[in-house]
Amino acid sequence: MALNKQPYRGTRDFFPKDKRVRDYLFAVMTKTSESFGYESYDGPLLEEVELYRAKSGEELINEQIYSFTDRGERFVAIRPEMTPTLARMVAQIHRESSKPLRWFSIPNLMRYEKPQRGRVREHWQLNCDVFGSPGRLGEVEILQVAVELFEAYGANESHFEILLNDRSIVDVVFKILMKSTETQTYRLYKIVDKAKKITHEALQKMVSEVGLSLEAENIFYAYLRLDNFEAVKAFLETNNQIEIAAQFNIFIDFAKKTNITKYLKYDPTIVRGLDYYTGIVFEIFDKHPDNRRALCGGGAYANLLQIFNEDALAGVGFGLGDVTLRDFLEVHKLLPNFDIPVNDILLTFQEEGGLDATLKLAQILRQNNLKVITSFEALKFKKVFPTAEKKGVRFVTLMGSDELLKNEIQIKNLANKEQQTLNLNDIESILKLIKA
Amino acid sequence: MALNKQPYRGTRDFFPKDKRVRDYLFAVMTKTSESFGYESYDGPLLEEVELYRAKSGEELINEQIYSFTDRGERFVAIRPEMTPTLARMVAQIHRESSKPLRWFSIPNLMRYEKPQRGRVREHWQLNCDVFGSPGRLGEVEILQVAVELFEAYGANESHFEILLNDRSIVDVVFKILMKSTETQTYRLYKIVDKAKKITHEALQKMVSEVGLSLEAENIFYAYLRLDNFEAVKAFLETNNQIEIAAQFNIFIDFAKKTNITKYLKYDPTIVRGLDYYTGIVFEIFDKHPDNRRALCGGGAYANLLQIFNEDALAGVGFGLGDVTLRDFLEVHKLLPNFDIPVNDILLTFQEEGGLDATLKLAQILRQNNLKVITSFEALKFKKVFPTAEKKGVRFVTLMGSDELLKNEIQIKNLANKEQQTLNLNDIESILKLIKA
Repeated sequence: MALNKQPYRGTRDFFPKDKRVRDYLFAVMTKTSESFGYESYDGPLLEEVELYRAKSGEELINEQIYSFTDRGERFVAIRPEMTPTLARMVAQIHRESSKPLRWFSIPNLMRYEKPQRGRVREHWQLNCDVFGSPGRLGEVEILQVAVELFEAYGANESHFEILLNDRSIVDVVFKILMKSTETQTYRLYKIVDKAKKITHEALQKMVSEVGLSLEAENIFYAYLRLDNFEAVKAFLETNNQIEIAAQFNIFIDFAKKTNITKYLKYDPTIVRGLDYYTGIVFEIFDKHPDNRRALCGGGAYANLLQIFNEDALAGVGFGLGDVTLRDFLEVHKLLPNFDIPVNDILLTFQEEGGLDATLKLAQILRQNNLKVITSFEALKFKKVFPTAEKKGVRFVTLMGSDELLKNEIQIKNLANKEQQTLNLNDIESILKLIKA
Repeated sequence: MALNKQPYRGTRDFFPKDKRVRDYLFAVMTKTSESFGYESYDGPLLEEVELYRAKSGEELINEQIYSFTDRGERFVAIRPEMTPTLARMVAQIHRESSKPLRWFSIPNLMRYEKPQRGRVREHWQLNCDVFGSPGRLGEVEILQVAVELFEAYGANESHFEILLNDRSIVDVVFKILMKSTETQTYRLYKIVDKAKKITHEALQKMVSEVGLSLEAENIFYAYLRLDNFEAVKAFLETNNQIEIAAQFNIFIDFAKKTNITKYLKYDPTIVRGLDYYTGIVFEIFDKHPDNRRALCGGGAYANLLQIFNEDALAGVGFGLGDVTLRDFLEVHKLLPNFDIPVNDILLTFQEEGGLDATLKLAQILRQNNLKVITSFEALKFKKVFPTAEKKGVRFVTLMGSDELLKNEIQIKNLANKEQQTLNLNDIESILKLIKA
């Protein structure tokens, strides 16, 4: 029986033209991260499942993780996210490191998803994080990195927005203003997370089941109506939360000193689940009506190292997946065309005798940092130009019996169609022509 | 209980300085492969186990593979090698593609190994392949790629050699000259594979158990004594194998037209196991006495697509792992130092008021393709230079109360210790200084 030629469900084959797209996405990620002094790291593909259980709770472990027992009876998983690995690594070295640490990585991750638009089982994710007392300025910087990244792809405020909240505000509203118990707070976080995806009636039903006082319910609905930073400030001040309002204002003031403000929009429903965040939380949203989805999410956290019994170390970071990013760039027509490779020159010969000169010239051109393709056999004239086109070269050479006799080569510039005949010993002129 | 901070057994954490080494290794691989017009591809992390069973046989499946059953009852494995994925991908597109296909990839692979020097459970491997009638010139080209790669790392013939054989010669010797049965041939391949690792007595014992005629045994030992290309040619001609000698000579003649000949050494024990090779087979060996091991192996094959019921498609390729490569470069002191990151400038301010100007300047410098680190808070003078050193910057700026008053900035070049004070509005001079 013949084997299946298709990739495993929910994963992708990256043929050269798809790989060029991925290389482009990653190159921009790397360049932008490095422009802020972020250093690249990576971790193992497998981690012990305990690491994910400690951080993410049972839901992820049970339903979404690729876990199995290895031949040495270790219960391991293919990494579904990078943060636990990052925390484990930082826990090893944070004592001896000069803070802040600015790190980024673009790992491949696997989750057992039902494949659909924007969701696959294996994807890559840019992770940018700052560790070590980054404070409000660190929160602003991590948003700057995200903004600069999208701008480097050619996107602007017509394409994306940053929906932002602050977990310390949410905590004050739920715990102090609404006087919720721990269980109620937990349920409120779940409700807020879903608020935009359900009808107002469904929302009211869920809220009524939490068992809040009428006053607390009113505060909750007032909170959900907040839709800009001024309103948040006024709401907090009206409710005598001057300190938290001032704290948030520091963030807003710092943000105004950079180019991120025009993208920021306050959104009370952004809480990033029940995750470990303690400061700002945000999601970058595609504004295109056909692709309304989060492209990137992140926030500030007080301590990822607790599970390693290490001292608290504050940080802020985000993750951005390659699949939704590619969809975003395509729907906005921001993705360059990568169908054809980019090479410098195709060396062909029309008579067997041309092989020696071809191999010799190829080596010299490669030593001069050119991308050089040689034909493995004499290539018929009519095949030369179609081949050159498929290989994306800028120049093509021909060597027939005439040229062989005179030790010459014809070089054609495919852009302007100009053709020159040069002596094979005149390497200087050949290089000058191609490198022009 | 605190969690384990160490990575899963046999895998590696890539802290920034290790990641910089890996990035360097991969950048050279990419540049060299692309200089020959090879196009980058990638495949999924997981494949169905059937794919490996079809190609590699039961040994790999049973003992070395990370396999498990997914939640949809599919029996899958983390890729232990790239060739089956490559074959699966090529099988999808070879009919519509212009040949030859020149492809490369640097995937991470996992095998359940007992960790030791040069062997880990997760490693990366450069795979370079040419598909579609590459012939003897394709064999030479793939060796050229490998040689250019090692030379690009600074290695030469004092560091490495290419031990080479031709499976068609081995087949002629075993099947025609020695008249071995299929079972005997299978056993001879296994013996040859081990010949260099065992004593002569052990070898004789194994050979005597194959049940060959005395004449066949003598041919076998004569074959094993062949140690240069001239001797191979003479041996084949003496035994009336003119055609196969001539075929091999074409390869040798092509090789002589390139820079690979000085590295080539005939070795009758190189057969690359019972694998699918049909033409040349080779291993690149480290010449260092402390690190005598294969760094790279490959060969030519007639048909990888058989398992997909596709037409035969010949190819040639090699694989080169990151762990043995790094050991090789380290033992020969060819690896540059990557302990410190490379950044352009650290912007610091000694008075809170300097923040605004710092954020503004940082943005401009980044737009000019510089790697810029800013401090999140006023940095004491005595901390400025130690921080700059750790971050590997070429320049550092200072802004105290004097500079703030005059809207100026001090810029120090850390290489030549020269310091200049420039006006913050004079961006042109600042850029000129840093980009010089």
